[in-house]
Amino acid sequence: MEKTTQENFKAIKLRLAALAAAAPSIIGQFGKLSQTASADGLVSSKVKELTATAIAISKGCDDCVAYHVQKAKQLGSTKDELIEFVAVAIEMGGGPAVVYGAKALEYYELAGS
Amino acid sequence: MEKTTQENFKAIKLRLAALAAAAPSIIGQFGKLSQTASADGLVSSKVKELTATAIAISKGCDDCVAYHVQKAKQLGSTKDELIEFVAVAIEMGGGPAVVYGAKALEYYELAGS
Amino acid sequence: MEKTTQENFKAIKLRLAALAAAAPSIIGQFGKLSQTASADGLVSSKVKELTATAIAISKGCDDCVAYHVQKAKQLGSTKDELIEFVAVAIEMGGGPAVVYGAKALEYYELAGS
Amino acid sequence: MEKTTQENFKAIKLRLAALAAAAPSIIGQFGKLSQTASADGLVSSKVKELTATAIAISKGCDDCVAYHVQKAKQLGSTKDELIEFVAVAIEMGGGPAVVYGAKALEYYELAGS
Amino acid sequence: MEKTTQENFKAIKLRLAALAAAAPSIIGQFGKLSQTASADGLVSSKVKELTATAIAISKGCDDCVAYHVQKAKQLGSTKDELIEFVAVAIEMGGGPAVVYGAKALEYYELAGS
Amino acid sequence: MEKTTQENFKAIKLRLAALAAAAPSIIGQFGKLSQTASADGLVSSKVKELTATAIAISKGCDDCVAYHVQKAKQLGSTKDELIEFVAVAIEMGGGPAVVYGAKALEYYELAGS
Repeated sequence: MEKTTQENFKAIKLRLAALAAAAPSIIGQFGKLSQTASADGLVSSKVKELTATAIAISKGCDDCVAYHVQKAKQLGSTKDELIEFVAVAIEMGGGPAVVYGAKALEYYELAGS
Repeated sequence: MEKTTQENFKAIKLRLAALAAAAPSIIGQFGKLSQTASADGLVSSKVKELTATAIAISKGCDDCVAYHVQKAKQLGSTKDELIEFVAVAIEMGGGPAVVYGAKALEYYELAGS
Repeated sequence: MEKTTQENFKAIKLRLAALAAAAPSIIGQFGKLSQTASADGLVSSKVKELTATAIAISKGCDDCVAYHVQKAKQLGSTKDELIEFVAVAIEMGGGPAVVYGAKALEYYELAGS
Repeated sequence: MEKTTQENFKAIKLRLAALAAAAPSIIGQFGKLSQTASADGLVSSKVKELTATAIAISKGCDDCVAYHVQKAKQLGSTKDELIEFVAVAIEMGGGPAVVYGAKALEYYELAGS
Repeated sequence: MEKTTQENFKAIKLRLAALAAAAPSIIGQFGKLSQTASADGLVSSKVKELTATAIAISKGCDDCVAYHVQKAKQLGSTKDELIEFVAVAIEMGGGPAVVYGAKALEYYELAGS
Repeated sequence: MEKTTQENFKAIKLRLAALAAAAPSIIGQFGKLSQTASADGLVSSKVKELTATAIAISKGCDDCVAYHVQKAKQLGSTKDELIEFVAVAIEMGGGPAVVYGAKALEYYELAGS
């Protein structure tokens, strides 16, 4: 499973890079929007990535969970902080959020720090 | 394919167990909520699992479909009953519900009874 | 509030009638699909309308909740049966399903039987 | 009803203007993204607004339907063109798309051209 | 508009109270789940309510936005903090999140502190 | 990856065929609805399949993206046309639409023409 997940992280990045190459204008604009949304401010980038993870869980977007969990871990999020955001996602999403919350935890364990 | 799906059922369970171990409080609360929602009452547990399956189909939550179809089968749901709930999900979800309804049928065939 | 909801039921029907008049082909096809999905079979029409209500709650589709709750009531659903389907929707949808489940109950009380 | 919808169009615009004033950075970035996405290209702006309408219908976002239908009408979309996009939304969204498709038609009739 | 929103806050509360009275078991369980998810911990209750607001925006659940924005304000959230969470919701939800983000801001202004 | 995707296309078709065999009535009705929605009219079938693709992206329905991208390519859609519809989906869906838009591009490259 661990190998599969690492390959999955890699496949996501390759796919996003291919889209960015084919559609530089819209992906460039989205990149700027994303930077603005996730920049350190009154709220830290770490908390913003955890919030994005909680939204991704509640939307059932698997690759988005993988992507934002990785970023949150790189910004120093502990596993216990992640779990508190997973709990909010479960409050707002029920059973499907349990399922994707479990994936978030799995991706957290496997992501490089 | 059959082997892959059995492995998938197993992976879902392992992932949920890992989340339950890491987040016993919120998963414990969710477990109680889930038991209350799916208990036999005026409506049978079987029909409730089939309803949860129909909701999972309409939300496009793959693992949730696998989970609730298994439970419905264990509670005695026939394939033809499942199909009637898939039809309601299609009425309420269009094309994406056709796609996940097809997965529900596949998971039903492969699930242990 | 009661008057507003009755007006809302009426507005939904008028809007759907206007769409059916303007787009008879696609709405005619959808009508046949809907009849097939909700017909009495192994599962009763009443249970199918309650299932459609639970899906509508989990999707947060207000007018759909109003429409299918009315149909379920006309087919003899009691309030306590409705509540058991609301509970499944809450299991599968968390907080937003609580909010739309509360609307389902309100629409049930106000709908004609 | 007509008056209510005109007031609704106005309320949407006021609300968006208030957000833009309070959050100029993120709304400015979103505005650029939106312009890039909806600019005339291989596909006309009119078709892009109709596509945005179809997505809004399939997401059940009422104000988004109102906003993009208005834009499509201003760009010359006929009612019959709109209806063909509503049909695709119904294929991809089932009953909830019927409900929001009916709203799209109502908003089209009431929007200024 | 201000009066309408205050009436809307009140209507939401009455509707939830009616559901709680009719379905004490499932709503009681959900209440415990919600308390567990939103309790002060490594992450503050305030940040958790803002996260719930961001999820509600990204789901397009109007009443949920109203409910969680009120709670966040009562817990001391400033308008500028709210806006940073709205920005994350826009990153994860595009146009529909702009529309519901604008509602979040409106509800914030009108909510009692 | 290429082989995996071709196998995935095949698995989707087999699954849909199995559902159609088990549930001929509802799938037959859905087939007619789908034909009505995607027929050449004021708007071309090609544009309708690209619109269905954009909706599938915004819903995060992976198999639906694969299915409708294939159809759009068979009807003559170029990669650059696809990208303009992906851009509208990103405007209406944010980050998750970027992720599924990247999948749409991958499926386009691998689909037979």
